Amino acid sequence: MQKKIITISREFGSGGRSIGKAVAEKLGYDYYDSELVQRVAEETGFSAEYIADAGEYAPGKSILSYAFSSGTPHAGTSMSATDYLWSAQCRIIKELAEKGNCVIVGRCADYILKDREDCLNVFIYADNAFKAKRIVELYGVTDKSPEKRLVDKDAKRSVNYKYYTGREWGATENYHLCLNSAFFGQEECAAIIAELAKK
Amino acid sequence: MQKKIITISREFGSGGRSIGKAVAEKLGYDYYDSELVQRVAEETGFSAEYIADAGEYAPGKSILSYAFSSGTPHAGTSMSATDYLWSAQCRIIKELAEKGNCVIVGRCADYILKDREDCLNVFIYADNAFKAKRIVELYGVTDKSPEKRLVDKDAKRSVNYKYYTGREWGATENYHLCLNSAFFGQEECAAIIAELAKK
Repeated sequence: MQKKIITISREFGSGGRSIGKAVAEKLGYDYYDSELVQRVAEETGFSAEYIADAGEYAPGKSILSYAFSSGTPHAGTSMSATDYLWSAQCRIIKELAEKGNCVIVGRCADYILKDREDCLNVFIYADNAFKAKRIVELYGVTDKSPEKRLVDKDAKRSVNYKYYTGREWGATENYHLCLNSAFFGQEECAAIIAELAKK
Repeated sequence: MQKKIITISREFGSGGRSIGKAVAEKLGYDYYDSELVQRVAEETGFSAEYIADAGEYAPGKSILSYAFSSGTPHAGTSMSATDYLWSAQCRIIKELAEKGNCVIVGRCADYILKDREDCLNVFIYADNAFKAKRIVELYGVTDKSPEKRLVDKDAKRSVNYKYYTGREWGATENYHLCLNSAFFGQEECAAIIAELAKK
């Protein structure tokens, strides 16, 4: 059965996003990453910047910490900002999956869509040297070493994933296919995924 | 560059061995599993049965515990039986890799050959239900539940791998490609690996 939904989880710097985009292009599927952020922003009133950051990285933070910086936070609830965001994100991801063929990058989509049988769940990872070089090329140098940036970002993704799904982020059992993008190259990764989704 | 050596690490019951054999057939590569055990047996004097079990599952056991049950154990050394076995296994795996194209199943070959650049390191895993059903079909029922047998065997593999390599068994970073055999099926897994090894 052709897989209608492809979820891509990825280590920071591994190129998972570019790979996801390339897979969507190859298959003519919709691609959701910033589009998804935009949609969650519209529904929740949070700013897109806040969602892009908190949606994958910061479980359980109090809604108050964002009350003055994130547009119009959800009022009249005792939920934390990120719990509220999680809930909206779940609903929207399920709706998008229902809408038709697509590639969804990040945002625990593998877990959120776990009851569907038409998903191919992929994890993209790579060696630290490859990822460190890549994030400096893409995002420039900062005060923090590239190695530290990698560890910090993935640690946040991991905590967020564990908090909302109870699972270990990056553990093979959550995915159907795990690819080392430093070894295969991004183009080849996209070709492999697109090919396997068709079967 | 075509990959000359394919190492297959696998969860118990996932079908990794059959997949490895099928890959070797597809590519016309040598296949080492029981052949490797036999060769280690010849070199070390341990029985093939002991090697098949201890070579992947029991780090650091005293050589004395096997002195009366394992043929002719190495005499005149203060090494543990399994440390001695590890050392022989490393040497033999490196020699086999030098000899020519091959598929090696288990025995930490991914780690032992880590300095070569012509290896494709694969990890095969699957859902517990799939593996439990498979081991009962293959090896029959025992006093222990299939689920417990799976956990016990993989826990031993994991301890052994950690002891000799310092790495986490089954962590994506040790492999180039990880495949869920319950999802893809064994035949498709073999086809994917053979195809990728050619590139």
